[in-house]
Amino acid sequence: MILTVTLNTALDITYRVPALRPHASHRVTEVIERPGGKGVNVARVLAALGHEVTVTGFAGGLTGRLLRDRLTPVPGLVDALVPVSGPTRRTVAVVDERSGATTQLNEPGPTVSAAEWNAFQEVYEDLLAGVSAVALCGSLPPGVPVGAYAGLIRTARAAKVPVLLDTSGAALRRGVAGRPDILKPNADELAELTGSHEPSRATRDARRRGAGAVVASLGPQGLLAVTPEGHWHAAPPAALHGNPTGAGDSAVAGLLSGLVTGLPWPDRLARAVALSAATVLAPSAGEFDRGTYEELLGRVAITEEAGAA
Amino acid sequence: MILTVTLNTALDITYRVPALRPHASHRVTEVIERPGGKGVNVARVLAALGHEVTVTGFAGGLTGRLLRDRLTPVPGLVDALVPVSGPTRRTVAVVDERSGATTQLNEPGPTVSAAEWNAFQEVYEDLLAGVSAVALCGSLPPGVPVGAYAGLIRTARAAKVPVLLDTSGAALRRGVAGRPDILKPNADELAELTGSHEPSRATRDARRRGAGAVVASLGPQGLLAVTPEGHWHAAPPAALHGNPTGAGDSAVAGLLSGLVTGLPWPDRLARAVALSAATVLAPSAGEFDRGTYEELLGRVAITEEAGAA
Repeated sequence: MILTVTLNTALDITYRVPALRPHASHRVTEVIERPGGKGVNVARVLAALGHEVTVTGFAGGLTGRLLRDRLTPVPGLVDALVPVSGPTRRTVAVVDERSGATTQLNEPGPTVSAAEWNAFQEVYEDLLAGVSAVALCGSLPPGVPVGAYAGLIRTARAAKVPVLLDTSGAALRRGVAGRPDILKPNADELAELTGSHEPSRATRDARRRGAGAVVASLGPQGLLAVTPEGHWHAAPPAALHGNPTGAGDSAVAGLLSGLVTGLPWPDRLARAVALSAATVLAPSAGEFDRGTYEELLGRVAITEEAGAA
Repeated sequence: MILTVTLNTALDITYRVPALRPHASHRVTEVIERPGGKGVNVARVLAALGHEVTVTGFAGGLTGRLLRDRLTPVPGLVDALVPVSGPTRRTVAVVDERSGATTQLNEPGPTVSAAEWNAFQEVYEDLLAGVSAVALCGSLPPGVPVGAYAGLIRTARAAKVPVLLDTSGAALRRGVAGRPDILKPNADELAELTGSHEPSRATRDARRRGAGAVVASLGPQGLLAVTPEGHWHAAPPAALHGNPTGAGDSAVAGLLSGLVTGLPWPDRLARAVALSAATVLAPSAGEFDRGTYEELLGRVAITEEAGAA
């Protein structure tokens, strides 16, 4: 069983419009709703790969109910979300049919009370007893202390459960001090954390801040991994044209899947890159195509890099 | 009792963002939700003026429940919405805090089945027995026949209830053939109906298509009315700076309020213009400030116009 934590779950709404024009009125031609938040997306990919996965974090209000109603039917996925009094946030992605570009609007999420935060931490500690890995994913909702991830990482380490952290901003800066086994920043998060825009230097710097391994996602350039076993660059076989929504979450799912099945690092990275690429190429945002994934898996280029700083 | 019909009710969501940039990601700083759809807005203004008002139309799903939960506490307002199996639509207004401009995204609404449409028409006919005026407001949801308003107008006329129509596009073109007592188009709707961008000519033309009276809302220029008793222009006392959201709905409420209290046309128009102006000037979109309304009421400039075409 793998555990994913999404403290700021979301009901992800996608609107298609013929062309987005600021300050104009638009008729939405298509509305798609699905459960979201990074850890929920990771869990869906893991379940599709055949893993048993438990989803925790917070859910509340009618949007929280909609989210949970849509998680229940997913085979292999267990809902262990903790109730919160405020309503789960919505995110709205407005897709311009003309350009294919997406404009994203993210609600802040409900304010979590101290009692709710305490209740979550107890549930989390109980859940850790039965899992082989945990991923802490996404932003912190209002009310949750900024150092939350560092605490959750320490709890996981005490329970001897390997922990992956994928977040941004202050939550990332404070979280890395908790010494996660794997840190998965993207290029922007890495630059914000380290002050360096040079990926190789920044990835090594991020690891020195406390992570066991750092796997940086560099968009079309694939993944750069700095681990105790070595440094690798893993690249998709060709430039990918598609929707990058959810590609980072699919990479996290690939890393976790490879971790719990005991794969060596190069194979974990190939799995992560192939899943990520199959997500970019899928017709629906955030989904992945299994055939494409399996076809790409053997074609990811893994290069070992020099380990010196 | 006044009846307002909103076949395509909505949960109106307002997002404030520091600055809207297409194709970027935005953190929403404020989320406001309120029951919407034109007839619901008209009813809220009528209730605030002290009228008893019944709201009908369709509501469904969790968004419909949120909408009804928020209508219930409004004093003077009776909820007679008819259930529909699909979820009530959302509208999202994105307010750019820098410019104050609004970008609007409107979901299409649930598809109404033939059985649901029949159920509505029965409820509507029953409700007509106890009301002194009815307003038919806004767009038609998918599944409702394009000639729906013409039929509802004929039913109201058979019940000797005066009827106001405020809609657009094909629903307006087909609706006017049902001979509503009052037609309330804005400048764009009037031009689309008649092909003329000259308001005076277009308003008279619209009346010849079947309406008893036409009251065109011309934005900052106020209202232009062509009625059996005369032609008037009613203008606010000064240029108004504010948010025009809901100003047209407030004008409809003013016209209905004046109608059921037996005011002559110039006084009805003054009420409509003052309410509309007080809505533009209110700090919250779609609300109106009672003090501003009362202050403006005596300062609306009413000009009788020559009646010849």
